[in-house]
Amino acid sequence: MSIRDKRKLTGIPDGVIGRLPVYYRYLEELDRNDVKRISSAQLGEALEITAAQIRSDFSYFGSFGQQGYGYRVDELKKQIGAILGLSREYRMVLIGAGNIGRALANYQNFARRGFKIVAIFDSNPLLEGNYLAGCVIQPVSKLESYLKENEIDIGIIATPYEYRQELCDFLVDNGVKGIWNFSPIHLNVPEHVVVEHTHLTDNLLQLSFRLNENALISGGFDEDSQKE
Amino acid sequence: MSIRDKRKLTGIPDGVIGRLPVYYRYLEELDRNDVKRISSAQLGEALEITAAQIRSDFSYFGSFGQQGYGYRVDELKKQIGAILGLSREYRMVLIGAGNIGRALANYQNFARRGFKIVAIFDSNPLLEGNYLAGCVIQPVSKLESYLKENEIDIGIIATPYEYRQELCDFLVDNGVKGIWNFSPIHLNVPEHVVVEHTHLTDNLLQLSFRLNENALISGGFDEDSQKE
Repeated sequence: MSIRDKRKLTGIPDGVIGRLPVYYRYLEELDRNDVKRISSAQLGEALEITAAQIRSDFSYFGSFGQQGYGYRVDELKKQIGAILGLSREYRMVLIGAGNIGRALANYQNFARRGFKIVAIFDSNPLLEGNYLAGCVIQPVSKLESYLKENEIDIGIIATPYEYRQELCDFLVDNGVKGIWNFSPIHLNVPEHVVVEHTHLTDNLLQLSFRLNENALISGGFDEDSQKE
Repeated sequence: MSIRDKRKLTGIPDGVIGRLPVYYRYLEELDRNDVKRISSAQLGEALEITAAQIRSDFSYFGSFGQQGYGYRVDELKKQIGAILGLSREYRMVLIGAGNIGRALANYQNFARRGFKIVAIFDSNPLLEGNYLAGCVIQPVSKLESYLKENEIDIGIIATPYEYRQELCDFLVDNGVKGIWNFSPIHLNVPEHVVVEHTHLTDNLLQLSFRLNENALISGGFDEDSQKE
């Protein structure tokens, strides 16, 4: 049975996986503000998710909280953190030290959660040897030997589109199992490799779609109300 | 009827809206490589989406392409671009000139699609007066008068979490209808306002979840195979 089929049998829908980080971040905020306890109704109201959805999401992972009491914030945060795999460290290489790469390298939230950028590579000879977030920028020609000598969990691809699929193949061939793709092109990977896509332009395009949709709805929809 | 209910009646699911930018970007690549024609099967294979899903997605917006011929790349790209609202310009303010803000300001893909950052604000007095991507960084105290004198479509919030909800309220009260939220906290907005959330840490957390899921599946699942 393929890994993809096995994954489907674990029965955890993408929607649930997508909400876990949202819960986690909110529980972090509650914890930071010394809130001890929260009910699914309160969680739902703050996050604009129904209490029923929250309870359904949590049911995939075990039983949290107590009837009538709700959840203990610190415990729930730890449990969700463990599910998200936060109880270990992840070693990452960053490929691409342009604007996006630099922003990622300097983003302290990652390291705080155990995601460490341990090496940075770029093809621009002018950047070679520069310091960035505790690493010395190395030429891409050194990537292969680096991967052979070091165990890396995640490769971050933040390069212009010409390099993406080749780089991705390269990382995968050298044992990297997780790819975070910032480059604007779709990547193909074998089944056992996980790819996370972050396409900033996509987010902006979705925003413009919904802005236009709203304009149409608040403007012209009433004429069609007979179709309801 | 509320805007939210009206939006549901337009019947366009979030999943479809999420795929439109993916189609658009791929059609851009095809166009750049002078490919004239593509079928839904070919599109599907490249993007790992079924041809049936693609045809279903497009059916929300009209009828594209011809039986037996497939789609003309340049036409389909234009049609999807129009649906995504790309045939107009959007004026954006950026609040937060830290790492993420600077990366966004320098990201040329936005301007190429008609999304222009026209003003940048930051609360750090040391940044005031600096040039960034063609703008002079202004203090946040000037934001209100700026919004009263200029029509702005989208506000980008790329600040640390202390400022988020107040800034959001401020933008909304001054007529901004679209918010792009990079700050790590959930934002509440009135119905007629659109919020797009980009949480880099969430993407990384989803990646770590799936990495761990894969490790569990390839490791321990076989013992449970009797439950299938």
